[in-house]
Amino acid sequence: MRILITGAAGMVGRKLTERLVRDGTLRGQKITALALHDIVEPPVPVFDGVAVTAHASDLARQGVAEELAAEKPDVVFHLAGVVSGEAEANFDLGYRVNLDGTRALFDALRLTQNAPRVVYTSSIAVFGAPFPDVIPDEFHPTPLTSYGTQKLMGEALLADYTRRGFFDGIGIRLPTICVRPGKPNKAASGFFSGIIREPLAGLEAILPVPRSVVHTHASPRSAVNFLVHAAEIDGDKVGPRRNLTMPGVAVSVGEQIEALRRIAGAKAVALIREQPDEAVWAIVKNWPTRFEAKRARELGFTAEQSFDEIIRTHIEDERGA
Amino acid sequence: MRILITGAAGMVGRKLTERLVRDGTLRGQKITALALHDIVEPPVPVFDGVAVTAHASDLARQGVAEELAAEKPDVVFHLAGVVSGEAEANFDLGYRVNLDGTRALFDALRLTQNAPRVVYTSSIAVFGAPFPDVIPDEFHPTPLTSYGTQKLMGEALLADYTRRGFFDGIGIRLPTICVRPGKPNKAASGFFSGIIREPLAGLEAILPVPRSVVHTHASPRSAVNFLVHAAEIDGDKVGPRRNLTMPGVAVSVGEQIEALRRIAGAKAVALIREQPDEAVWAIVKNWPTRFEAKRARELGFTAEQSFDEIIRTHIEDERGA
Repeated sequence: MRILITGAAGMVGRKLTERLVRDGTLRGQKITALALHDIVEPPVPVFDGVAVTAHASDLARQGVAEELAAEKPDVVFHLAGVVSGEAEANFDLGYRVNLDGTRALFDALRLTQNAPRVVYTSSIAVFGAPFPDVIPDEFHPTPLTSYGTQKLMGEALLADYTRRGFFDGIGIRLPTICVRPGKPNKAASGFFSGIIREPLAGLEAILPVPRSVVHTHASPRSAVNFLVHAAEIDGDKVGPRRNLTMPGVAVSVGEQIEALRRIAGAKAVALIREQPDEAVWAIVKNWPTRFEAKRARELGFTAEQSFDEIIRTHIEDERGA
Repeated sequence: MRILITGAAGMVGRKLTERLVRDGTLRGQKITALALHDIVEPPVPVFDGVAVTAHASDLARQGVAEELAAEKPDVVFHLAGVVSGEAEANFDLGYRVNLDGTRALFDALRLTQNAPRVVYTSSIAVFGAPFPDVIPDEFHPTPLTSYGTQKLMGEALLADYTRRGFFDGIGIRLPTICVRPGKPNKAASGFFSGIIREPLAGLEAILPVPRSVVHTHASPRSAVNFLVHAAEIDGDKVGPRRNLTMPGVAVSVGEQIEALRRIAGAKAVALIREQPDEAVWAIVKNWPTRFEAKRARELGFTAEQSFDEIIRTHIEDERGA
């Protein structure tokens, strides 16, 4: 079992790497090679008896994808991408990395004729307002960001390349990953994690939107579970519609805060400071709220059942038991 | 009013050119320049007082799109494309023309900063089975051909480039255009036109699928009407969802034949020979049948009301009154 991970230096990429090292197997087979790729040098884990290689390069640059594909991976996790805010601020960079990089990788895999399982991280950013109360699997994607557009184009390529037998792709549309570990960042979605992570660490957090905002979340651990399940799932059961909206926990910000209160008490909640931010609100109000994710659930993808569970997962994985 | 038409040598491109020459105006303004582009030299009409230029080149070749955009068209009709069967048979050609060519044109228009209205012909091929009985505007596109994939990717670009203000795009998903003039071709959809056009000319026609097959049609004249309306429509009324499924006449093949009988009699109908073709049936059975096309109708796009009207349009436009 030879594995390639692009975007391996990112938060999800690092957690996926840790998981694979812990498991030692994928699809019931012993992992024998692990190639980690990112634009910056990804951390290289100790992985007994496994050839781990690290690659720092630009996937869209000629020859890079070919070099990675030449290793004939059996499973490719294509996580690499410029995030939403950056793709919006830098038009050329977003299309170069998210579209051209993805296409370069897919074409290199096509030409190598190894037909690996390709797990592609798409995003609920492929959807754009207005939405029904619950977004069904058959709802049309009409992205309102360049990032969402690029992810949608990648999904379309993935499905076509799979249909043609060039590889065997599964696209997973991730909900917002929460609670993200690490420092606060400038992402518009950052507060969803911040209002939990910072109070748990005894620090103040800013809430820039109304408590009534509903959004769908899954933990970083669930994101890794999605990826591993997508690598192992029977492709025939998926059929030609290869891009799946992942399940998650749909809660209001108010419900997030009540979960925090139950787990960490009023003192933690008191660290949340409401400070409305029109710029953040203008972005967040166009985000999808709640998904049916029927197909993904039927195909065995599972997430947390409650926001309490998401917080407990964060405490276990990031703050010690 | 300066106009650019790509794919100007094709059937719809030529009819659109004729219409513009006849009208002399678009969006209430006198046409002053008309650039006709295709991979082969398009026919150049006599157009009093208008600078008509013909360009035969490959849109995906570096510099070609830039040259066309440098003329600063006010309206661009982007019809160019490799058809469904060819894009399926020739993977590289399809992606080169339908995706790279479209992106090259859109990028050239972006960099020229002239922000024209761009009318893009997409297709109901963006949809893939299974379908509900009537496909609503919010149904997700899951193409089952490379052509449909490429059209979907073009739609996504069009919407994003419009959202960013690079140009003002309207994508129109054409139903099957029927009755196509000219000789029978090898397109899987060819029989929909053939079973009408050939008997009207006293020739035999082959019907390769069951009479129960339902499909949506619009005449070539309606296709041109869609294009002109898409050029003239108020973009603000369209909002961010720029790609619209066009209306048409949804009928079974049996109903097509009954319309032919009403207009041309039993002698014409007797020229249709039923000769089931498994290969054609395998393709056609995955095609969408019936569309709601609610948004397009509300925005003033109109097609024929019955298949009788489609046949009469064909007789008027192609066979003399």
